[in-house]
Amino acid sequence: MHSLVIDRFSSYDARFALGPGEGSDAVHSSPQYSFAVTRLYSARGLTATGLTLTLGAGNDVVCRVIDLLAPQIVGRDIEELMAGFAVTFRAIADHHQLRWLGPHKGPVHLALASIANACFDFWAKVRGVPLWRLLLELEPRQLLALLDLSYLEDVLTETDALEILQSHRPNRASREQILKTGYPGYDTSVGWFHYNDEEIREKARRSLEQGFRAFKLKVGAPDSNHDFRRARALRDFLGAEACIMLDANQQWTLPQATRVCRELACISPYWIEEPTHPDDVLAHQILAREIAPIPLAVGEHIPNRVVFKNYLQTGSAGFVQVDCTRVGGVSEFLTVSLLARKFGVPVVPHVGDMGQIHQHLVLFNHVAIGHPVVFLEHIPHLRQWFVYPAQVREGVYETPQEPGSSSDLNERC
Amino acid sequence: MHSLVIDRFSSYDARFALGPGEGSDAVHSSPQYSFAVTRLYSARGLTATGLTLTLGAGNDVVCRVIDLLAPQIVGRDIEELMAGFAVTFRAIADHHQLRWLGPHKGPVHLALASIANACFDFWAKVRGVPLWRLLLELEPRQLLALLDLSYLEDVLTETDALEILQSHRPNRASREQILKTGYPGYDTSVGWFHYNDEEIREKARRSLEQGFRAFKLKVGAPDSNHDFRRARALRDFLGAEACIMLDANQQWTLPQATRVCRELACISPYWIEEPTHPDDVLAHQILAREIAPIPLAVGEHIPNRVVFKNYLQTGSAGFVQVDCTRVGGVSEFLTVSLLARKFGVPVVPHVGDMGQIHQHLVLFNHVAIGHPVVFLEHIPHLRQWFVYPAQVREGVYETPQEPGSSSDLNERC
Repeated sequence: MHSLVIDRFSSYDARFALGPGEGSDAVHSSPQYSFAVTRLYSARGLTATGLTLTLGAGNDVVCRVIDLLAPQIVGRDIEELMAGFAVTFRAIADHHQLRWLGPHKGPVHLALASIANACFDFWAKVRGVPLWRLLLELEPRQLLALLDLSYLEDVLTETDALEILQSHRPNRASREQILKTGYPGYDTSVGWFHYNDEEIREKARRSLEQGFRAFKLKVGAPDSNHDFRRARALRDFLGAEACIMLDANQQWTLPQATRVCRELACISPYWIEEPTHPDDVLAHQILAREIAPIPLAVGEHIPNRVVFKNYLQTGSAGFVQVDCTRVGGVSEFLTVSLLARKFGVPVVPHVGDMGQIHQHLVLFNHVAIGHPVVFLEHIPHLRQWFVYPAQVREGVYETPQEPGSSSDLNERC
Repeated sequence: MHSLVIDRFSSYDARFALGPGEGSDAVHSSPQYSFAVTRLYSARGLTATGLTLTLGAGNDVVCRVIDLLAPQIVGRDIEELMAGFAVTFRAIADHHQLRWLGPHKGPVHLALASIANACFDFWAKVRGVPLWRLLLELEPRQLLALLDLSYLEDVLTETDALEILQSHRPNRASREQILKTGYPGYDTSVGWFHYNDEEIREKARRSLEQGFRAFKLKVGAPDSNHDFRRARALRDFLGAEACIMLDANQQWTLPQATRVCRELACISPYWIEEPTHPDDVLAHQILAREIAPIPLAVGEHIPNRVVFKNYLQTGSAGFVQVDCTRVGGVSEFLTVSLLARKFGVPVVPHVGDMGQIHQHLVLFNHVAIGHPVVFLEHIPHLRQWFVYPAQVREGVYETPQEPGSSSDLNERC
């Protein structure tokens, strides 16, 4: 196998128009999906793409931070870089001046996500394999060398992580079946906040026809009767077997959340997502106990492994929605996945990448470390902009075969 | 009283050179103190200044966010704006697109701090009084109208906050004495991380001569013997009566922190500051129990009231070091001060503003809500750049008398 050097980089501020109501929730009323893109180039013409999501305003700010941080990887041989990526990850995350702007959260961490994701895309392309295959072919110690486990020592040492990776190797074969059948998806796009009742029913009908069996509805309206009525209507339409996930996008205070979640319990939600402020670990702990057995799903706005650790330690996360465009990229995603595995909590990513990278990562999580197959969020609004948009058929993500992380954007962007 | 309209704003990226070793700690090895400045102008020639601190790289990023957010306050009459500042605070903090870059942390929240601080400076100048006086002259309900208490409902309702404000009014007179005597300071600048032993002794000697009785030493060296030796030497030099605060600036893992804090206990530190990752509330909870009765001091990197709430709920904060240039400005500082008061924990601000604004705020905290007088951090490295640098004599901050928040920078910046 030959290697390649990262010859140069550029950042790119890519913003996309959405249709009416698309992407809307109780808190983010009018998002403009945008990617702060890191592009890496080899002298031989290979290009790679790293993504992080923003909602429009401020996307340029993340690009600016990419410009400040990415010089650290220029001139590096990709195999040499990835053989000890944890060291580079930490050097970028702990930049002695930019660290002040976080640490490990906000635009600096988003920029790190974009850069790290570009490195993984570059690496997989150099090896000529899809990202999921690259990750599955790594030895446990090679995987470990990608991961910054600092500040996790009290719950996940290097030895613990290695043990998880090694213990799941002997019985991989049964789980590799997923590579052939594909990973099931769920449909977020039936229930955006600003869709009216008719739109929701129409979208749900089409989604059912397309083979989906799990659906998300945005809640968090000023009047909880509105939430209740819509949730009830969706349950009635979809039937008892469908999974319905309710997502409040942080809108509720703890007292509100406790009250409204109890009201919503009667439609048997599969989970309730982001009920209140994402920094409020203790509020989630209290709420999780109050509304058990309905699990909470959290992670879209959990910025790093340390906060995930606290969520897991308190038992408040029923589902871990870590997003590799939100934490510091693919490697921190893997770190959080190991952490969640240690605690026995399933990972169901939030897809700031529209599922493009995460379709690889959920395959790794299942095959390599035995995470259960749940389903992967599907949001189709940007598919026209990808060179290799995720192929979802009969509600199932087909396993991508092209080299890389499926992140390349087409030239019209 | 006449009012004034905020006619326009500008942002300004002000960076300052420091001397060798100044500002250095175990994590931030070579900072360049920088202010992301918000300037507000009235049509009649009044100008106001808002500050937030960064360590150099990325200061422009905060300025860029100020440019995106500050238009929300342009054209507003200052009295009308401040009569319900909580509403504007929340509108800025929850900007429907920029919120994604936090929420309530990172450059977006730092920009809010700069903008909010400029509003308070403008307001006090319009009223022709120093900020401490303006705040002390407000009625409890006027103060409450400055504060966004959302996501605190489970521990601090509006009624609770009002009760704290009202209950401390009748017996104010005894505490007003502090306005005459001045607020004691402590000296952070004796023990920067990269100072050698001789420099530390020399600085400590001079600091003693200047009247200080409390001093900070940076710890968190790779070899804890280095920390121990320096702490021991400083204690021997200063004597048993001096307060010595040890500050690890987040450097330790939890297992390290537990071990090293126990070693350092023998020099009787007044507190141990930022022992580990600032997001790791539960690690602080465990550590606080392990090393009791030595208290932990936290807050320099706690981004908002919600995380402070969790620190207070877990009993891990022995001292709350909220910084009005780090949380969303003066009003969120006041919110956190009320929260700390509710939990009976003293507020000893970290001074990203070099103490300029905080000299006003600690006076308010003591007189208006009965916080105990501890001491206020003093860092003199930027004093030449302020129009009205804090006057610290015999180790005591003299009560500022000029109108505003003492934030104006002189024209050489």
